Amino acid sequence: MSINVFEHPWLSGLFGDAEISAIWAADAQLAHMLAFEAAWSRARGACGLSDAQEAEATAQAIESTTIDGDDLRRGTGIDGLPIPALVKQLKAIAGTKDVHLGSTSQDVIDTALAITLLKSLDLFKSRLEEIVGQLAQLEQRFGDQAMMGRTRMQAALPITVNDRIETWRLPLQGYLKRIELLRPNIGVVQVGGAVGNRAALGDHSECIVASVAKALDLNVSDRAWHVMRDTVVEAATLFSLISGSLGKLGQDITLMAQQGVGEITLSGSGGSSAMPHKQNPILAETLVSLARYNATQVAGVHQAMVHEQERSGTAWMLEWLTVPQMALATGSSLLLTKKLLASVERIGEAG
Amino acid sequence: MSINVFEHPWLSGLFGDAEISAIWAADAQLAHMLAFEAAWSRARGACGLSDAQEAEATAQAIESTTIDGDDLRRGTGIDGLPIPALVKQLKAIAGTKDVHLGSTSQDVIDTALAITLLKSLDLFKSRLEEIVGQLAQLEQRFGDQAMMGRTRMQAALPITVNDRIETWRLPLQGYLKRIELLRPNIGVVQVGGAVGNRAALGDHSECIVASVAKALDLNVSDRAWHVMRDTVVEAATLFSLISGSLGKLGQDITLMAQQGVGEITLSGSGGSSAMPHKQNPILAETLVSLARYNATQVAGVHQAMVHEQERSGTAWMLEWLTVPQMALATGSSLLLTKKLLASVERIGEAG
Amino acid sequence: MSINVFEHPWLSGLFGDAEISAIWAADAQLAHMLAFEAAWSRARGACGLSDAQEAEATAQAIESTTIDGDDLRRGTGIDGLPIPALVKQLKAIAGTKDVHLGSTSQDVIDTALAITLLKSLDLFKSRLEEIVGQLAQLEQRFGDQAMMGRTRMQAALPITVNDRIETWRLPLQGYLKRIELLRPNIGVVQVGGAVGNRAALGDHSECIVASVAKALDLNVSDRAWHVMRDTVVEAATLFSLISGSLGKLGQDITLMAQQGVGEITLSGSGGSSAMPHKQNPILAETLVSLARYNATQVAGVHQAMVHEQERSGTAWMLEWLTVPQMALATGSSLLLTKKLLASVERIGEAG
Amino acid sequence: MSINVFEHPWLSGLFGDAEISAIWAADAQLAHMLAFEAAWSRARGACGLSDAQEAEATAQAIESTTIDGDDLRRGTGIDGLPIPALVKQLKAIAGTKDVHLGSTSQDVIDTALAITLLKSLDLFKSRLEEIVGQLAQLEQRFGDQAMMGRTRMQAALPITVNDRIETWRLPLQGYLKRIELLRPNIGVVQVGGAVGNRAALGDHSECIVASVAKALDLNVSDRAWHVMRDTVVEAATLFSLISGSLGKLGQDITLMAQQGVGEITLSGSGGSSAMPHKQNPILAETLVSLARYNATQVAGVHQAMVHEQERSGTAWMLEWLTVPQMALATGSSLLLTKKLLASVERIGEAG
Repeated sequence: MSINVFEHPWLSGLFGDAEISAIWAADAQLAHMLAFEAAWSRARGACGLSDAQEAEATAQAIESTTIDGDDLRRGTGIDGLPIPALVKQLKAIAGTKDVHLGSTSQDVIDTALAITLLKSLDLFKSRLEEIVGQLAQLEQRFGDQAMMGRTRMQAALPITVNDRIETWRLPLQGYLKRIELLRPNIGVVQVGGAVGNRAALGDHSECIVASVAKALDLNVSDRAWHVMRDTVVEAATLFSLISGSLGKLGQDITLMAQQGVGEITLSGSGGSSAMPHKQNPILAETLVSLARYNATQVAGVHQAMVHEQERSGTAWMLEWLTVPQMALATGSSLLLTKKLLASVERIGEAG
Repeated sequence: MSINVFEHPWLSGLFGDAEISAIWAADAQLAHMLAFEAAWSRARGACGLSDAQEAEATAQAIESTTIDGDDLRRGTGIDGLPIPALVKQLKAIAGTKDVHLGSTSQDVIDTALAITLLKSLDLFKSRLEEIVGQLAQLEQRFGDQAMMGRTRMQAALPITVNDRIETWRLPLQGYLKRIELLRPNIGVVQVGGAVGNRAALGDHSECIVASVAKALDLNVSDRAWHVMRDTVVEAATLFSLISGSLGKLGQDITLMAQQGVGEITLSGSGGSSAMPHKQNPILAETLVSLARYNATQVAGVHQAMVHEQERSGTAWMLEWLTVPQMALATGSSLLLTKKLLASVERIGEAG
Repeated sequence: MSINVFEHPWLSGLFGDAEISAIWAADAQLAHMLAFEAAWSRARGACGLSDAQEAEATAQAIESTTIDGDDLRRGTGIDGLPIPALVKQLKAIAGTKDVHLGSTSQDVIDTALAITLLKSLDLFKSRLEEIVGQLAQLEQRFGDQAMMGRTRMQAALPITVNDRIETWRLPLQGYLKRIELLRPNIGVVQVGGAVGNRAALGDHSECIVASVAKALDLNVSDRAWHVMRDTVVEAATLFSLISGSLGKLGQDITLMAQQGVGEITLSGSGGSSAMPHKQNPILAETLVSLARYNATQVAGVHQAMVHEQERSGTAWMLEWLTVPQMALATGSSLLLTKKLLASVERIGEAG
Repeated sequence: MSINVFEHPWLSGLFGDAEISAIWAADAQLAHMLAFEAAWSRARGACGLSDAQEAEATAQAIESTTIDGDDLRRGTGIDGLPIPALVKQLKAIAGTKDVHLGSTSQDVIDTALAITLLKSLDLFKSRLEEIVGQLAQLEQRFGDQAMMGRTRMQAALPITVNDRIETWRLPLQGYLKRIELLRPNIGVVQVGGAVGNRAALGDHSECIVASVAKALDLNVSDRAWHVMRDTVVEAATLFSLISGSLGKLGQDITLMAQQGVGEITLSGSGGSSAMPHKQNPILAETLVSLARYNATQVAGVHQAMVHEQERSGTAWMLEWLTVPQMALATGSSLLLTKKLLASVERIGEAG
């Protein structure tokens, strides 16, 4: 039973998003880490750093093993991250010291992060497309209806429903393009080794990087991005842009649903324990909360740019504390928007 | 398996704090909510709003029931909070409509929050006392040792170890006093009813509030604090002050542990997957991360002050997203400090 | 011509607050710094560290001099702070090397900060009192009027205007008490010397601190607070609490002023360049912006708690970047509230 | 005399950047606003909404006038922005009501913002190029020197100076590309009119937008971006990315300059008022402060995405409070980096 709203036994009824949670779940992370270690072994074989046959056997052993999670937990308590314990388990399983050799904890965890960010973007993309479709439908159904245009919280001049919905839809379409632009930068394998310069790989460096990247369907880079976190910031920024634009949509709907304004009718949801007659626009409200939440978290991700030297534990862990939560919030925000838009019965000036 | 580092299957090996997690766990929250509803029923009986005997029977039914969590989850998805579903369950169990009558969801959830904040402060207080004790011991053991005083990252003039440790200890002692000052403000029962003015309680308002407060060992207030969140901000501020001061301690220790500086020796922990010879000051690093994390979150709690009208769902949920996480981070931070200080083998100028 | 809205040639017409600006102005800071240096010289005389008569002459020379600001600017560019250049000027003026002796830059600047924070709190207190009075008057004039209570942006149950205004007034009254509680903690002289331990003062330390504190009407402390910034955080928190509660008031008024709601009538202000008929509740809107601004800044002040060793330039400068701006925002917020409340012509249900 | 560090009489000696200040200065903003109004008049003429000759005369009158700043200040106090007052002045000057007709305050101010953001990016680009050049030179001079690679604040394995500098240089080169990518999105004219849908322009809308955009050397868009602030967030993000990467560089240099580490020698600067022998790496420290400052501010810009309806005064003003400051901080950060790198006398392992 988690305390965190996104995975909380009952608050997840509102905030929960099973798909994004599955993408960030510990077992998915572990699967990516094992995939990295297997790819690493095969790369060592392919590039002549290990015996190719043994390397393949090692990779297969890694792929077919079951990891002792309690041991990872103990190891994380001692080493600050699970990789030393994981590697020890894998070495025992594979019966070779060649596991992980030339790599480092950050390579494994950050490569898993890159994969996870890509999967998140893919999910967000498909949901954005659905939402853009829902909005287009609402425009078709209600777009020509009259509505009061409101600026600075005051009635200004009449608009149509289309005018309002367009301001919700256009940014989301923009984010679809941005996801495409960002994908290649974010989906980059992390290979640096102990101090980030791939020194342990010698002349085989390029070969190893290419081989691991190919196995994991990621891009290569000329250098490890251990301490160059701009793409992580960009991913987090995109998360917050998405939830921010949906927050604007949510804020609008809470305002449209007010008595005396009556510009929208929503079906279902929003019961009060004190007033059975009331119907609260809870989905719309939650969108605003999630927008403000991500707007808060993104500051932490920017703070995490100040890495010391070849690797900062401090800055790196600050990402662990903020980036997954932002992804969950963005996923939740998209899911709630879909529900919210599906519940729209009418938009436009009160009859 | 939670994604959140504080409850993550293996990252909790570093960040986890079973005691603070137990305080914020869903089942603890539910227990407080049931305690509120039971106290509420008895208060209605004692103040003449319900038949006293029936009220007592209702309270006992509430206290001895088992709640269907799945139903709370479903209910939260529909109503945005678990209370309508909870109250429906309780009414069925108690066989009366008098359950919760005159109260509202926010009364229940915020009263549970007040209890939870108090319990958190109590835990933090006892840990701060232990840490102050540990620091006093370190001062006794190493206090007279010489050390270079360093300002703006440069050697300045010699100091003693006492000079350094005192800057770690004094703020913590100050927080012990602040906890005492804050306790009465934070431990206030929430009673407002539908629109926060206790109107449904009529002349019985004072009696009900006093009765509920007494049963739950909380203070009374003249008014509901539904939309007046200054004490929540103050609690969150104290959390961040604590983790902030421990972050300074952690930052210092990472600097002292550097090669070429060597002002501290730590036992155990900090293995590297790439360099077995290395020992990373991971506990100290984590303190810095947690300080920066709470410094990030506290902005969200301040943003949540902008409540609309008699109650803002938006602002309130922003607290749910940030305050529990801050408590977990502070608990974790205190726990790690205890471990870190226990691992100090030597402080002072390198021999 | 400043770019910053609080001092901008025309944006200051909205955001500007001459009184709080005067408190934080560079010349006021310089005056406090000179007052510190004069008090320091006299303290040295009184405590036997310098010849008493010469010390008095030095103090008078410091008090009656005019400082070359360009030189301070040059000096700050070189040394990162103005004190080395200032001290050099003062030594030349006073014709003695005893100026500043045993003190350090941070003592001077932080003591000036303490004085400035106190003056800010005094201004805020008197404005809070005025606003509480204005609110009490509004309660007298309109308090019994009916109004719809609104929760989660939906009409709930009828309330009175008093119910709404009380939620604006009570937190402000609480801040009056908090200011009293905080004043002694915040108004503490900074004396630490080169590495913060007052070592250069030897046995005269207590005498010097008491003497300087008395001269500047500040409290003493047992130790320098160079790296213990909890009181700065507390001051910043109070600033943000004030602007946060006023942000709630502002948010409410923007909602009350909506067409279709019509729960408030404001006189004057708010013209639009496109729609002469419109009247925007700009003062209320600005309160929300300032609340969210301070809620953003306060995170920076918390980040600034992570001081390294005996003094962090990094963390300290982060305060310089955020704390004054927060004070300006809070002052502005109070001033705008006074104007806004004075413009209220009617509160209560639309006729 | 400004309180804000970037324009402060003496703190600007450290934080000030005359070039970026000139770009954001009020008079530059006014020039852009007048350029917009002149372009608007000419566009009305060109597109047949006004008499072409009169429109040209109006434009020339606007371009050659002197604006009464006090009046703008008064107007901002009343209307919340300077445009109604400005337009009134311009109408009087030009002797026609056609000035600004069909436009709105936000069109003027946001178009000025777009121009200002572009100019900022151009300045940053040229400075980034200089810094990349400086770094390349340092790599040439000292790149092959040995240095200890340090991870998690602990000595790890030997690297070369090149390895370290590369992690400073590469992100900056990436930002050069990002500036190119962002320029077209950011440099978009704002044309929406009263409620953002260009309704007042009727069939002339496209012509007007194209004409104004061309005159101001900006791009067109299909719709006003009044409430779609993603490009503002992206600009602010880029500012913070730049200062964040320079913060990493600064943090590294403070660590390299430590006694006992001695991996860098800097010339000049950093005097202490208490310890003449000390040399503080103040430029490097300031880079860290500015990175953390921008990381704080960026949260405010994200919060400002939650615009209500056709225009939010609240959210918009939150940008005014944060975005210019971020630009100043980024400018300052680049300028200080140039100075810092120019002061490097040696990098590499202590001899």
